[in-house]
Formats: sequence, C-alpha cells, structure tokens
Amino acid sequence: MRPFHVALIGLGTVGTGVAKLLVEHADRNARRAGRSIVLKHVIVRDAQRRRGVALVNGLLHSDVAHAIEDPEVDAIVEVMGGTDLARRHLLAALNAGKDVVTANKALLCVHGDEIFAAAKRNGRTVCFEAAVAGGVPVIAGVGQSLSGNQITGIEAILNGTSNYILTQMSATGSAFDDVVKEAQALGYAEADPTMDIDGTDAAQKLAILVRIAFGTKVQPADFVRQGIDTLEASDLAYAAELGYAVKLLARAKLTGGKLELHVQPTLVRRDRPLAQVDGARNMIAVDGDAVGTVWWSGPGAGQMATASAVVADVIDLAVGRAQRTFPQLDLWGDGAPVPLLPIENIRRRSYFRFNVEDRPHVVADIADVLGRHEISLASIIQHEAPDLGEADDPPQEMHPIVPLVVMTHRATEGQVRAAEAEFARLSALRGPWVRMPVAD
Amino acid sequence: MRPFHVALIGLGTVGTGVAKLLVEHADRNARRAGRSIVLKHVIVRDAQRRRGVALVNGLLHSDVAHAIEDPEVDAIVEVMGGTDLARRHLLAALNAGKDVVTANKALLCVHGDEIFAAAKRNGRTVCFEAAVAGGVPVIAGVGQSLSGNQITGIEAILNGTSNYILTQMSATGSAFDDVVKEAQALGYAEADPTMDIDGTDAAQKLAILVRIAFGTKVQPADFVRQGIDTLEASDLAYAAELGYAVKLLARAKLTGGKLELHVQPTLVRRDRPLAQVDGARNMIAVDGDAVGTVWWSGPGAGQMATASAVVADVIDLAVGRAQRTFPQLDLWGDGAPVPLLPIENIRRRSYFRFNVEDRPHVVADIADVLGRHEISLASIIQHEAPDLGEADDPPQEMHPIVPLVVMTHRATEGQVRAAEAEFARLSALRGPWVRMPVAD
Repeated sequence: MRPFHVALIGLGTVGTGVAKLLVEHADRNARRAGRSIVLKHVIVRDAQRRRGVALVNGLLHSDVAHAIEDPEVDAIVEVMGGTDLARRHLLAALNAGKDVVTANKALLCVHGDEIFAAAKRNGRTVCFEAAVAGGVPVIAGVGQSLSGNQITGIEAILNGTSNYILTQMSATGSAFDDVVKEAQALGYAEADPTMDIDGTDAAQKLAILVRIAFGTKVQPADFVRQGIDTLEASDLAYAAELGYAVKLLARAKLTGGKLELHVQPTLVRRDRPLAQVDGARNMIAVDGDAVGTVWWSGPGAGQMATASAVVADVIDLAVGRAQRTFPQLDLWGDGAPVPLLPIENIRRRSYFRFNVEDRPHVVADIADVLGRHEISLASIIQHEAPDLGEADDPPQEMHPIVPLVVMTHRATEGQVRAAEAEFARLSALRGPWVRMPVAD
Repeated sequence: MRPFHVALIGLGTVGTGVAKLLVEHADRNARRAGRSIVLKHVIVRDAQRRRGVALVNGLLHSDVAHAIEDPEVDAIVEVMGGTDLARRHLLAALNAGKDVVTANKALLCVHGDEIFAAAKRNGRTVCFEAAVAGGVPVIAGVGQSLSGNQITGIEAILNGTSNYILTQMSATGSAFDDVVKEAQALGYAEADPTMDIDGTDAAQKLAILVRIAFGTKVQPADFVRQGIDTLEASDLAYAAELGYAVKLLARAKLTGGKLELHVQPTLVRRDRPLAQVDGARNMIAVDGDAVGTVWWSGPGAGQMATASAVVADVIDLAVGRAQRTFPQLDLWGDGAPVPLLPIENIRRRSYFRFNVEDRPHVVADIADVLGRHEISLASIIQHEAPDLGEADDPPQEMHPIVPLVVMTHRATEGQVRAAEAEFARLSALRGPWVRMPVAD
C-alpha cells in the first residue's frame, strides 16, 4: 500500500512531540498502520530557528498553501493553536480534499460547526482525540467503545492545572496565590493561567464531549461556570471535615430528557474515584445505560501524552478507521439533540462558607432565609472563635468575624439564587461568601 | 446501505443482554452504525424454554449450521461459553466467510492461534472486546488508542470476584471462607469460584492483553500465578499497617527487552489508583512510552456491561472499523514477539507472614537465611504475644505461636525460592507461610 503522507502545521511543544513520534518511530507506526507514515511538510513561522527534533532538509518551511496543495499529502495535522489562522488552514485543507487532525479544543468550540460542515461537504474526516484530556482516549471511548449505550452522564476532571492547585492547597494548606506561583515555577500552570483557573478550558472540553455524547451544541457561555480562584484552603479543610474532596468538576447529566451542564468546584465524596485524582491527572467518568460507569484517567496535557493522541489519530486515518467513525459521530446535529435544562432548574446540594459576626442569632438568620426558600440544612460547622484576650464578653463592636459553614439538602439553582439575594442584605454577613455544589 | 445481519449463539446471561440491546435499541444502533443491525438467528439448545427477552417468532432455534450458512448473515456472535463447541462454531463461521464476535476469554486462550489463523486465512475479523474486563474497553484502548506507543507495562485488576472478596476481608476482618459464601449469596461469586480465586481467569485475560500489547503468545501455565485463598484477614491488616492494599494484580512488564508476567495477590501502595479499586470493579493501568500511564476502570462483568462491549463490537463491524483494526493487531505473531523473562530472574520486594514460636533468636534465624541469599530486610512487624496467664517466662514447650511479618528489599524470584527452601527447615516456623510480592 502506498505511504500515508502527513503535513504538520506548528512545531511548538506538542508539534515537536508529534514530529518525534513520526520520525523516530517510523517502523512501529508502519506496523500499526499497515503502511508507512511519512512526515512530508512541517510548517513553521520561522524555518531558521533551531528545533528539538532532527528533521531532514527541506521538510521545514513556512508555506502552508504549498503543503495543503501537495497532491501527495493525505492529512494535515494542526497543532499551532489559536483560532483564526488555525480555522483558515483547516478549512483550506478540508476544501482541498485533505483529512485533518487537530488538538485544538478552543478552535472546535468556536468554529466547530463551520469545520465539521466543511468536512461533511467535502466527504473528509476531522480527528480530535487530543483536544479533550490529552493522552486519555475518551473521544474514542465515548464515540466508539460505548456506542451500544445511551450516555446518561459525564463527570470529569478535565483541567490538570486547577486539579494540581486544589491538590496542593488541600495537602499543604497554602493560599491559592502561593500555590499558583509554585505551579507556574514547576510548569504546571502557564504564565497566564486564567483559562485554566476560571473553568473556561474545562468547559470547552466538556462542550466537545457533550456534542458527541448527546448531539447537543453548546458554548461555554451556556454553562454554569465557576472558577477555583475564590476558594480558600479552609474550604478544602471544611470539605475534608465533612468527608469530601473539592474538584473542579465538569458535569453533564441527563435529567428528565434535558441536559444539566456545569463546570464548578464541587464537593465530591472522598470514597469516589473522582475524589482520589490528585495532581495534574485528568479523569472522566461516563455513565452508559447498559454498561454502568466507565472511568478513563491519565495525563490530560504534556508534550508526549498529547502527541500520543495525535499520532493515534494519524494512524487511525492511515488504517482507514477514522473515515468510518467520523460520519457516525452526528456532529452535524441532524439527529435530535438533547435540549439544555434551564440553569434555574438544576437541583443540587450546596456548600456555603460565610464570614459572619460571632454574635447571637446569626445562624438563625441564615437558616431563616434558607427555610423561607424551602432549602433544608444538612450540616453546619462553626468552630470556636479565636480568643480576643481578657474580655469574656466583648462589647458589640468587637464581635470577631468567624467562618460559618453550611451544607444544604437538594434545592434548585433558582431557590439558591433567591436565598443568596437575601443573604446580601444580612448585616451579620461580612464580605462575599463561597458557594459550591455537592455532587450526588 | 443494506442492513447488517447478526446470528447470536447462546442466550444465557450475556446473550440475553446482547439480544435486548439489539432488539430494544434498534433505532439508536442504526444511528451509531449508519445502517440497520438486524438480529436474524438466536441459537439455543432448547428453543422452547422461556427467555428474558421478547423475540419475534422463528428467531429462536437450535440449528447452528443453518445460521452459519445463511448467506444474509454478516457476523456470528458467540456468547455460549465453553471451549469445544464454541471453537467448532467459530471456525465454521470463519470458514463460511462470516466475521465473529466473542466474549469467550478461555476459548481465545486455549484455541486463539487456530481461530486467529482461520480468520487470517479467510480474510475475516475476530472481535473480542468483551473477553477482557467486560464493559471496560481496554482492547480498543491498547489495540487502537495507544497505537502511537510501545506499551511498556500493564498492571491490572481483572477479576471482580477476587477483588470483591479482598475488599470485604479488608473492610470487615472476616475470614476468606465466610466472605466467599457471602459473595456467592450476593451473586458476586459463582457456585464454583475456583477459576476466579486461583487467578486463572485473570491470567487468561492478561494473556490476551499481552498478545496485543507485546505480540507474545502465552498460556496461563507460563505465569507466576498465585490465588487469594491462602490469605488471611490479618495479611490485609498487616499490609494496611505498612501502607499497602492487597490486590490480585495481573502484571506484564518490559524489563530489559524481556517480559515479566505474573498474577498474584500483591501489596500495592495505598495512594496508587489500583489500590483504591474496591468491590467488583476492574482497573487496567497501561504504560506507554509516549503517553505515560493511562487507566481504564469499570464493571468487568455483569449482563449489560458485557453486552455493551459485545454490541460495540457488532457496531464496529457494521461500520467497517473492526475489519480495518483486526489485521493490524499482529495476532499472528509475524512480528518479533517480546520473549519471556525467566521466572527466576523476576526481581521484586516480598512480604512474608510466618507463624513462629515466640522465643529468642527466631528473627535472627530468618534474617540469617535471607542474608545468606543476599535479601535485605526492609521492615518487620511483630506484635506482642497474647498473654498466656501468670507465667512471665513460660517453659520452652509453651512458647506461644505468633505471626511475624517481614518485608524485604528487592530480590530475584530465584533468591527468594532458595531462601524459602531453607525456611522449610527452620524448626521455629510453624505451618506454611504466606508470601506476596510488593509492587514497585
């Protein structure tokens, strides 16, 4: 069989990893694919710069159009990142009759419709295993291995940076800002970690999974989304006291024929597999109506882990598998997508940490607000206030501020938001409070 | 596209689950496959017996040859179990030009060579996702999603029954026999649980994984294999005291170009994901040279979980994916398979629990034997002996028998076996001792 020819766009961290696997392991790739896989073009902005992989002369250049128009090229692998140029290149490649592989979750979230439609129009294939959870093959898992099931729920830790930060805060009691700095120094967090910390990255990945599992097209703006930057180490300690770990959980759940979606720091019972995922590891729990729950776990980022997923996609194309799988993924949404559950109707338990004045009737005030919105209390933690010195009964203006932790029974987001509007008017509450959902 | 026609051989627990998914979810199967999937024959011994699934008239019969020779049938699904008849049916199906799906690990272990060769000769496909870890799609994971890697190691909990028993013994301190009876009552263990408890079932599954991951053909007889029936609840308690959980671990590891294989109750550090798998759940950790470690976990048995994997294989065939994947799995062993590491050269730490007379010099005797075989002690646990009454210093013949737990540093199986030959001659050791390896 004739060799399968690949053009790589981008030679950053992941691109270098992909080039290494293609060049240094050509023999084993050929064994797995049943034909040679040849890296024919590597497109970079600056072809003169030194690179972390040895490439034969002439491979490296800056002419994308030349690579896309090369009749010998079968597939374009996009690992340049960004959304505008990457979109243009992928559309050009699909229109030129090439299959494409991308690791670009932001691109698929923003321009997925257009890219998938271009693939359909041209009878081509888009592979994107590396776009969700890096080296963990959950796209193949949901799109292929669980094809005998209706997926009923997805719960996932999809952002390694935030999971590393939460793990460290929990283990050391260090403050959020300090752990972020440490994570940056160790390479676990980027110079600007906003997208990781505010849940955007996890929401983009969940949106891709939701599209495959439920046929539903969503944008991160459609989610209840909450970052981890408002949490204190004390929240993780209180959660532990209650028997929970805090995870930035991305969740999609079929509830009465509608889809509940959120990405939030969430209390997860400590004996559940998701609670035991420490450090930068990702985990995805998928519920199928036949199989029950299947878990995937592993490195959600990193050069060679992500390259592993990209190269698996390239081999799938060379074998001819991906071309069979892609048309069945229903990314065009011709089927009936599951509609979203309105945010106000999402029903969960809540954890609150308030900063309150340590004086009589504060707990009663909070319980009263919750009660009037038909939200029942499940548990309360209030530890003894720090000693203020000699005065056993300090004058009113000296009431110390103490944390008060409240866990509620299940209530809708609408009920909880209405209660929060009233909390804002309670004079005994000082500063903003922290709220997190509690996973069932 | 014309419908894809399936004949099902066997309508026991798994067969009924498969029939249910095919009959009750024909619409969604057709969406996933891009064509209808039609169950055309269901072969049973007794076509008159009542069944747990509603089938149209004429579907159920006892004539295997009629189903296999039906020119409309595309694939034969074998879920009858056993090795002799199942082998004959699968060979007949392959020779008649049908693709086959099987959930039968014992069959593949005993007659895999012959079946795979028949498939190759006839240009047909054998699918067997359900044969390993039930609903957990690890065959697709290793054979397809990690194709960009050289697999370097597999560590797995592949037998739910034994994991349930170990979990219960550890949680309750109950004796092995009592937990087995309880597991049988709850349906977690079969009436004759020998194959689960003695490691045969896990070894058969590991042999299939090893064939895909390393190209190496092995039989359970080639393994170091040890069951869980010699363990006492105290072993699990001592392991916990040392910071470990005990799991029936199936392990394959590339060591200096050779393959180390064993299925044994093994001490696993408590903070590792494998140690946290409780109850009947399975977990497979696969190390790839690019990706690092990826974990799969979920239900390794059960009617609908296993049926989920079988139906995924049927859909893969209907889509045309499986026919592309199968020839690349190198099951014929034309490539260079990794040779086995001789058992004597396997190098690990060991846990021993001896029953010893509580008198001077016993620890010294044991340490002396180990030392002469260049095995270093890592830790020792000997708790105070139970009180024998008034005598502070009982006469020699009254030495109580107490457990002595020893953990060693790494040594080869050859060294350890040589030391054990000497232990057998120490008069202070009473009865057989327990030995388990300790995972790195």
